[in-house]
This record gives sequence, C-alpha cells and structure tokens, in this order.
Amino acid sequence: MANYEFGAGIWMFQQFIDRYATDAYGPEVDTIKAIEKAAEVGDIRVLDINYPFAGDGVTVAEVREALKRTGIRAQAITPHLYMREFQLGSFTHPDPKIRQKAIDLGTKAIEIAHELDARYVKFWPGQDGFDYPFQVDYQRLWDNSVEGIRSVAQSDPSMQFAIEYKAKEPRSHMFFNSSARTLLAIEDMGVDNVGIVFDLGHSFFAKETPAEAVQLVARRGKLVSIELNDNWREWDDDMAVGTVHLIETLEFLAALRTIQWQGPLLLDQFPFRENSVEAARSSILTIRALERVLDRLDLNALAAAQGRHDALAAQRVVLDLLLGTGLVKDHD
Amino acid sequence: MANYEFGAGIWMFQQFIDRYATDAYGPEVDTIKAIEKAAEVGDIRVLDINYPFAGDGVTVAEVREALKRTGIRAQAITPHLYMREFQLGSFTHPDPKIRQKAIDLGTKAIEIAHELDARYVKFWPGQDGFDYPFQVDYQRLWDNSVEGIRSVAQSDPSMQFAIEYKAKEPRSHMFFNSSARTLLAIEDMGVDNVGIVFDLGHSFFAKETPAEAVQLVARRGKLVSIELNDNWREWDDDMAVGTVHLIETLEFLAALRTIQWQGPLLLDQFPFRENSVEAARSSILTIRALERVLDRLDLNALAAAQGRHDALAAQRVVLDLLLGTGLVKDHD
Amino acid sequence: MANYEFGAGIWMFQQFIDRYATDAYGPEVDTIKAIEKAAEVGDIRVLDINYPFAGDGVTVAEVREALKRTGIRAQAITPHLYMREFQLGSFTHPDPKIRQKAIDLGTKAIEIAHELDARYVKFWPGQDGFDYPFQVDYQRLWDNSVEGIRSVAQSDPSMQFAIEYKAKEPRSHMFFNSSARTLLAIEDMGVDNVGIVFDLGHSFFAKETPAEAVQLVARRGKLVSIELNDNWREWDDDMAVGTVHLIETLEFLAALRTIQWQGPLLLDQFPFRENSVEAARSSILTIRALERVLDRLDLNALAAAQGRHDALAAQRVVLDLLLGTGLVKDHD
Amino acid sequence: MANYEFGAGIWMFQQFIDRYATDAYGPEVDTIKAIEKAAEVGDIRVLDINYPFAGDGVTVAEVREALKRTGIRAQAITPHLYMREFQLGSFTHPDPKIRQKAIDLGTKAIEIAHELDARYVKFWPGQDGFDYPFQVDYQRLWDNSVEGIRSVAQSDPSMQFAIEYKAKEPRSHMFFNSSARTLLAIEDMGVDNVGIVFDLGHSFFAKETPAEAVQLVARRGKLVSIELNDNWREWDDDMAVGTVHLIETLEFLAALRTIQWQGPLLLDQFPFRENSVEAARSSILTIRALERVLDRLDLNALAAAQGRHDALAAQRVVLDLLLGTGLVKDHD
Repeated sequence: MANYEFGAGIWMFQQFIDRYATDAYGPEVDTIKAIEKAAEVGDIRVLDINYPFAGDGVTVAEVREALKRTGIRAQAITPHLYMREFQLGSFTHPDPKIRQKAIDLGTKAIEIAHELDARYVKFWPGQDGFDYPFQVDYQRLWDNSVEGIRSVAQSDPSMQFAIEYKAKEPRSHMFFNSSARTLLAIEDMGVDNVGIVFDLGHSFFAKETPAEAVQLVARRGKLVSIELNDNWREWDDDMAVGTVHLIETLEFLAALRTIQWQGPLLLDQFPFRENSVEAARSSILTIRALERVLDRLDLNALAAAQGRHDALAAQRVVLDLLLGTGLVKDHD
Repeated sequence: MANYEFGAGIWMFQQFIDRYATDAYGPEVDTIKAIEKAAEVGDIRVLDINYPFAGDGVTVAEVREALKRTGIRAQAITPHLYMREFQLGSFTHPDPKIRQKAIDLGTKAIEIAHELDARYVKFWPGQDGFDYPFQVDYQRLWDNSVEGIRSVAQSDPSMQFAIEYKAKEPRSHMFFNSSARTLLAIEDMGVDNVGIVFDLGHSFFAKETPAEAVQLVARRGKLVSIELNDNWREWDDDMAVGTVHLIETLEFLAALRTIQWQGPLLLDQFPFRENSVEAARSSILTIRALERVLDRLDLNALAAAQGRHDALAAQRVVLDLLLGTGLVKDHD
Repeated sequence: MANYEFGAGIWMFQQFIDRYATDAYGPEVDTIKAIEKAAEVGDIRVLDINYPFAGDGVTVAEVREALKRTGIRAQAITPHLYMREFQLGSFTHPDPKIRQKAIDLGTKAIEIAHELDARYVKFWPGQDGFDYPFQVDYQRLWDNSVEGIRSVAQSDPSMQFAIEYKAKEPRSHMFFNSSARTLLAIEDMGVDNVGIVFDLGHSFFAKETPAEAVQLVARRGKLVSIELNDNWREWDDDMAVGTVHLIETLEFLAALRTIQWQGPLLLDQFPFRENSVEAARSSILTIRALERVLDRLDLNALAAAQGRHDALAAQRVVLDLLLGTGLVKDHD
Repeated sequence: MANYEFGAGIWMFQQFIDRYATDAYGPEVDTIKAIEKAAEVGDIRVLDINYPFAGDGVTVAEVREALKRTGIRAQAITPHLYMREFQLGSFTHPDPKIRQKAIDLGTKAIEIAHELDARYVKFWPGQDGFDYPFQVDYQRLWDNSVEGIRSVAQSDPSMQFAIEYKAKEPRSHMFFNSSARTLLAIEDMGVDNVGIVFDLGHSFFAKETPAEAVQLVARRGKLVSIELNDNWREWDDDMAVGTVHLIETLEFLAALRTIQWQGPLLLDQFPFRENSVEAARSSILTIRALERVLDRLDLNALAAAQGRHDALAAQRVVLDLLLGTGLVKDHD
C-alpha cells in the first residue's frame, strides 16, 4: 500500500461564498484558524497556503507558529492572483502596471515560501483568459502568460514553481486549460523550475483521462504536485474524492503507482454545505480504501488484458475487486 | 418590427462576487442606486427586483419613489431564497422550519409585489436540489418542491407566480432544471397561477432548443416572462445577448413572433468585468438589430423550406439576411 | 436480492457498422443466429426483437421456433423506423406518404408482437428530429410525433406501446429526448397504452439523474421497460453496465427497488470490438454483484442521512459497501 | 478579400452509412463518380482522396484521368486506417502484425500521393485510442502512436504528413484528441515532415477556441492544412460551415488572415440527408460572404478594443458588421 502523506489546500477550511449566497455559506475563518481546522482532520500533514493570508494583520510569524504548533508543514504558497484588481487578468492583464503587480505578488510569494519552508509556489491565474469571442489577441495572451511566469521563475532559480490548469471559472475560458497546453507553454518559458500541479478534478473537468494525462506530465518531468477531489465533469465542483468517478479515481491512483509518485496527496475541496473537517476525512478514508483495493489488484491479469486491449477482461479484474464477491472470478 | 419594451433583472446593476474574487468585482450597490443605473441605460422600462432589498434599511417606500422618479415599473419581485440559511434548500430544506421560512418569504414577496404593482412573483429556488449521488430522497424532493410553491400560490390567487428553471449552480443539480420537468411539476401543483420565466440562457444551458422549448411552454399557457442573455452552453455565463449564439438567438426571436409574445424582454446578465449600463445597451442594440433582420425575413421561403425539412434552403434564407450581401440569393 | 430476469435487445448479437468502418466490425448475423447467440449467454430470458427481421426471407414462424427452441421469450418488437426511407423522419416525415408508411410499419409490428406473444411494441423514432437551426417547424414536429404514435396506439388498445427517448443520434436533435418531455408528449396523445422504455444509458446521456428520472416516470404510471448499459455521458456509447458510472448505476438499482420494479432488465449494448456474449455476461455479473451490494445496504442509515440531506454520511454508507473494508464504518 | 481556393474531402460526395440506417443514406458512389460530383460544385479545386479507392477495381490511372478531366488536383491522400481489421487500432493495435499493416498502408499512401501529385498524406487514426477505463496501457499507446507515424514519415522525407486530431468517434477516446496533445506527440516523433490538419469542427468538438488553437499550431510551424465545417460542439456533426457557430467561424477566418494562410480551404462535411453538391455550395457561399464581412472589419477599432480586453467594444465592432445596420455604430 502506498502510504501517502495527506495534505490540503487551506481554502477548504475557510469561508465559502458564491454569486448567489452573498452572505456566504458560513462564518469567516482566518489563516490561523484554518490551520487549526486542518489539524483537526488528524491526517493532514501539509498545506497549500494562500497569500495574502486571510484575516486582519495575520503575520508570517503567526502562521509559522501555527504550523509548528499543529505539526503541519507548508507545502506550497499560492498567491491570490484572482482578486478584484486582477479581474481582467494577472500576467495577461492589458495594463502593464497590473501585470507588474502580478509579478510582484509572485515574487512576494517566493519570499513567503522561503520563510515557511514551502516546497513550491503555485500559480493559478484564474482571471487570465477571456469571456467573449473577439475579446483578446490570443497570441499576446500566450506571450504575456509565458513571459509573466518566466519572469517570476527566473527571479529565483532555487524555488520550484507549478501551474495549476483549469478549463474555466472564473473566466469562461482560462488560459492554462489542459495538461498538454500547459506543457507547451512551459516549454516556451525555457526555464527548468516550472512544472504542473495536477488536480484530478480539473483533469476530469478538462475531459481528459486523468490516469493518462498524469503520466504524460510525469514522463516530461513536469509533475510537481497532486491534488484530489471529484466533480460531475462539467464544472469544478470540488467534491469529496471518489464520490462520482470511483473507477477512474481508482485508475488514477493506479497510475500514481506506475509513475512511482511518493506523495503527498493534497485535497482540493469546496465543501460549501458540508463540515470541512468531515469532508477531508471522508476523502482520506476513500483514498486509503482504494489503495487497499489496489493492493489486491492482480497486476498480471490486468497487464495481460491490456496487452490485448481487452476491455471486458480488464474491467472484470477491476469490478471484481470493487464488488468484492469473487463472483466475477468464478465465471472466468 | 416587434417593438418590445425592455427590462432587466436589477441584479445586473449591483455588485458581483464569486468564490475567487471574494473582494468582489466592484463596489456595493444598493437597490435605489441600482434602479438609477438601470435608468441610465435609457431603454429599461421594467425591473425584476430582489427582496429583501440591497442596502441597509432601504424601504418599500423608497423603492417605489425611485421607480416613480426614474419612470421604471416593477415587473417582478424575486425573493432571495438562496442565501446562507437556505443553503440546503428553500422549499425542499430538510428542516420543516426552514421550509416554512421559505414559504413566509414567498408570502412577504407577494406583499411587496402588491405594494410595488409588480406583475408576478418569481421563484428561483437555486439551493433546491442536491450535489452528491445518494444525498436525497428524490420523491420527497419533488413533493416538497411542489407543495411549497403550491402553498405560496394558493395564499394569493390574484397574484401570478413564475418559476425560473436552471440546470445547476449553485447546486450541482437543481430541482427545476428544464422546461419540460418544470411543466410537469406545475401540473402537480394543481393551481392556475404558476407559470414559467423562460430564460434564454438557461435554455441554452439545459441543452434545449430555445425556439422549440418556448413554444412548448407557451402552448400550455404557462409562459409568464422572457429573460435574455447568452452563454457558452455549459454554464450560466449570463453574457450579453447574441454574442455567442447569434443564429439561435435570431431563431428564438422568430419563435417569439410565432407565439405573438407582446413583451417585455428582460435582460439577465452578470457583467462581472464590464460596465453594466453598457452591457445592457449592447444587448438591446443587438436585439433591435435582430428584430430588423426578422422584419426582412422571407417567411414564405422559410416556411417552404421547413415544409420539406430542407436544412440548406432554410439556412440560406437566414444566412443571406445576416451576411447581408445578396450573394446567397443570386445563387438559388 | 431482487432476482431479476435478464433480457437484451437482439441487436447486441448482430452486426455493427458505423460511418468509418463501412466494412462493419464483424460478419452479418441474421435474426435466428442472433437468438442463438443470445441463448449462449445463459441468462438471457427475453429479447427485444427488431422488425423487419435481419436476414433474407426469415419468417415469423422461424423466429417463433428459434425462440421456443432456445427457451427465450419475445419481450418487445421494435420496428425499424430509422432506415434509409425514414432518414428525414418517420412519424414526422415532411411527406405524409412516408408518415403513413411509419404508421403502417407500426401496425405491422403490432401483428408481429401478437404472433410472438411480445409484451409491447417499442418506438424508437431515431430519425424524428432535426439537425440544423431553422430546419423545421417545431410545433408541427410535436404534433406529428404525437399524432403518429397515437394513431398506432389507438389501432390496438390491447397492445402496450413504449417510447424510448434519446437526446441525439442519428439526428443531432431527436424529438423524444428526455423523460420529462416524453411524458408531456404522451399526455398529449391522450391514450392509456403508451408508456416509456427507460434506458439507463440514455438517461445518463440526457444528463438526467437516472435514479430520479425513473421514479418520475414510474409515479406517473408510464414505466413499461428498463434497459441497462453505460456510457461516458456525452454519447450513447452502449457499453457494459457499471463500467463508468458504478455509483450511479448502484443508485439506479436502488431506485428500482424503491419503485418495486419486478423486471426484467434488458441489456442494450453495442459491443463493437468485444465478444457480444461475453459483453452480456459481464453486465449480468456486474448487476448481480451490485444487487448483492444492495442487499447489504443499511437502509436506515441511508434514510437517516437523506433525511438530513447529509451528503457525506450518505456517501459513506455507500462507499463502505463498495470498498468493502469496514474501514469507513470504524471511523464513524 | 482572401480569395481562397476551395477543396473538399472526397468522402462528402460518397455514400453515408451509420449504425442505424444500415441500408445507408443513399446509393454507393465510387471514387471516380465522387470526383465528378465534386466537380459539379463548381468551386472545388482540390480533393483529399481516400485510399484504397471506393469501387471495385478503380485504378490510380483512372483516378488521375478523372482529376485531369475535371480540372481538380489531389491535395492529400488519406489511407483507410479505420476499417474492420484496424478496429482495435492501427499504429497502436495490440498485435504487431496489424501495426505493421498500418505502416504498410501508410507507405502505400505515400506512393499514391506521389503518383497523384498530392501535397501531403493525412493520418486520421480513428481507431487508435480506447473505450473503457483500464482498457489500455497509456504509455504504450503514446509510444506506439509516435513510433508508427515516425516510421512512415522517416520512410520518405520528401513527403509531407499531417495528423488530423479528433476527440472521439469511432473510439470513445481517440489518441490524437486535441491540438496541444498532437503537437506534443509530433515533438516526440523528432521528424520535420509531420504536421497537423486543423479541422474547424474538430476544434469546436474538442472545446478549443479555434481562432486561438490554429495560431498555436501555426506559430510552431506545424499547420499543414485547414478543413472547415460546423457542429453542435458535442459531436463531429460535419455540418455546413457557419450554420451554428457563425461568430466563431468569422473569428476563425480572421485568425487565418492573421497567420496569412494562403489556402486552400477544404470542406469536411457529412451531408447525410442533404444533397452533397448543394451542401458544398452552401458552405462556400457562406465562407465567401464571411470574407466580405472581414473585408469591412475595422481592424483598428478591433485592435483597440482587444488592447483593453474590452469585450463589449470588440463585440460591437463584429455585430455591427453581421447585423449590417449601422445602428450599433451610431450609438457609440
């Protein structure tokens, strides 16, 4: 059993709001309190932490102290590149002054990452993209995306950076929208310290085959981190792991074994209407149970079936495990 | 030319927020100020107004005065059935006390509608539905939806009510999700004063053919109101009219002529990154231009093509008008 | 355990072709041979049989004999309303002579159904619909669909009829495209002997929640038959049961218990690249295994969770069963 | 006005069949007759021709003669890599003997291309991919795809090759499924003579922004050919150009000007229920009309709007042209 360490995006323990429930789904939660809630889960060892921190006057020292107190490590720092001032874009904003602000915020995130011993700085440029046909010059959008991230990455070759792609939301079309396109853009950056955060739900949402796409990224040496969740494949619903796409989640975990991923696995959920601590526990329980299922997987039988592209045989190997009856095996 | 009166949902002139830009896309706008912005558009004659009003202590009298001052009429009152307390549902909330609160808010909306001379009370029960497989008892969800709205509708037979369906958001699955399903639920209510607000964008989003679906609703005598906007068909993007689905928007406007819709046409947009007044003006300009196109439509040629299900001939009639060159006609 | 009888659409044992592999995925198989292949599965007790039969000169007597010999019953007769001559529609064809041909073929199917003791005649009017915007007059499409089927149904009140809806293919827009819309059209027919064949894959494809939609149909007394398969939710892939949507298939089978469906369950698969007999066996093994899972389902725990709309608790009840470890339960 | 030369895939003048209308939508048409039908269109100058040819005993000499007689040039040769024997894959078939057959057919296509003076050999490996989770080893699928095409390409460095990507059909998941992924695979081939056929409909279907994606391909020097058609974005409907996505088709044609595409433009339609010659004429009329619209496009106004990412201003520039009234301009 791959005994993965678990982590989470800190946002899953904070306040959720959307365009309808403008009074939010629950009370405000500052970064310190969110770290404490993460610790409540019991299995969260690392966090992806947003910067600027949530809460008035919360300092780096306080965050470091909260992490130390709870035994949690900072895994990543994710700058808020998608707030009001970046609504038309961060690295691709039409105004060069705002583009510079995005770069400055990226640079600031590096500083925080060093102070908190985080492993990487994550870019999720949620406002970079467009909403309407004819709205932007696509070549300039590409160039600005590449140049902006390159600029931050070159400023600190000792830091690892990672881009998290998503098809859309909040823009109707986001710039970094698939694994393959992000790999091409990273090529164009021409730097060695930029890779990809592979978010399982975003891969479902991009209509990728996650078990395939993660191997594509890994083979090119660009896999920096893994985030897990689930959705209905038409939106970034950020649900608990395995609750809709159980079989493909299992296949994804099998792929992580193939590429010998050592972890950690970070949860990226938005439990709008659920208890965040319980939502994290549910996902971890599911992942561990799926890992036990994989421990029992007959790899030879599966390889033999895949060697023939034999869909029914491959499926039987898997469904027999999930349905746990031996009934399937008896038949063959 | 159908000389429609125009209107809008008042929300398009207020503040937008989403789960990422939690500092919102612009400043707060109270109901009074939103009415004034609507008036700035120049062609907005009616408004769908949310209740409770936005802004501290805004009173019905103040709203009535603002309407009078700007020459705008209240077309509809839409109660906020989708705020924090209704996050698990309004008419379908598991707690009967919250269900009663939803009914009470509906009843209050009737009162406001009478005070502002609004033509109907609109229900958009955005939180009624579910997010996960196995989460709810579907029969109870149906029954509670039907009973809740019936209860409000029966409390005032003199008032018109209308349900606005949408496939999803904020729930991953909303209860009233298509025109046909909403018609069935209305049947089950067994009251005469509940109909449908047909939102063009929601119909696109539900993967309906809007020109077909609006006729289905109208033939059953349940069409109460029309809202217009556009989207990319996979989310309720609430964009300016005709910017993506120009041909189907034209077809929809043609269908409104077929059913002899007298108007008004309400805009339902969320111009997150645009000027709201300009966003409304753009849509109105487009609709009026499309109406002029329809004025020139060769109805006999179109009917002849449709009589043969002749797609190419029907398309040529339409594309010739849009591309405005006469080139197409010369060919035939 | 619901000890369902199993059946299949006979087409799954015949030849498959598509627009690319125009030399077909395998050899021709006539109706007699297809019945024999169905019998090979070992658990197929009933068949939905296309008329006209496949193969030169195959007679009703021969089919009856083959059924008798194999111990299989005819469950339904499905007339080929979607061949070349009906390419612009069957009941909705622009030419009234072709519409009459569709009615005549429906009438002939009744006769065959009586001769083979089939329980119902199924309509799958795959060519009724449209492909292009502006191509058809939607009201006439609706009326012709309703009138055509009503006409066949009225011709034999002793026979049961059932419509199988599908969103699209071969038309880009099929007329009977969802459960709710089909229920409305059936209402308009004003006859008692027309209901719905609920195809699980078509419900996925229509972006319905199958466990919800089947209850909607059943509560209105219109559920005639159940067909099972799976797909990727964006096309009618006709795959083996439970291979993609395992959790929702389980939820669907649970819903069949709720409505006390007595069976049979028919498979509707197109195993283009697989052995048809094995493809059927795989599905039956999966369904039986899922039924055993349901036998162990803690209905009280699930009802309690659903009573609170508690997604995480409901999911844990289910995932604990599928992942079979007890790990989940220990946690609570 | 870009005075493009037009062409077509020869298949659009041949017989169509699908899995339901197994008696086909019309009579058989051999390659010679298809060339003659293409010539009937009046504006078709080049053809993408499938090999093996359709029709018993049709020879290269006969095809060359028919081309000469009609004044049409062979633009591309597309080998039938997706017939029955390749149903589990061509370059990725599990059996190395079939993989070799695919390579041999590719080599044969080169020979035909030379004999007919075609500019490139097109690969559309429609059966390379998978249908079920767990069915294949994704890394092997990638390697086999890359190696197979590299092998053919290396066999004749003087010939140009081009891959046409598509998301799915006939496989539920095709290997070459997007522009970005195909670019990555071409990189891995390490040869200079393999590029991309950019099919507008496939780009819509892949949920790309075609005007963006074609520039991505062109900037990397991999754009070999352009095919046009339209669809409903959820399937490869192969409809007449501009009939659904008029605005995005206009944006795509504008992008072709940006990259200074010199043509030709090939039509790739499957007019199942329409006259093929008329279907081609409709598309050409539409494209020419859109080109005239582009001639009138105020490039400075558009560039200014795009320089600000000003969606409404950019849209007004475009809608004013399409709605042809000047009304929009008067407003500004």
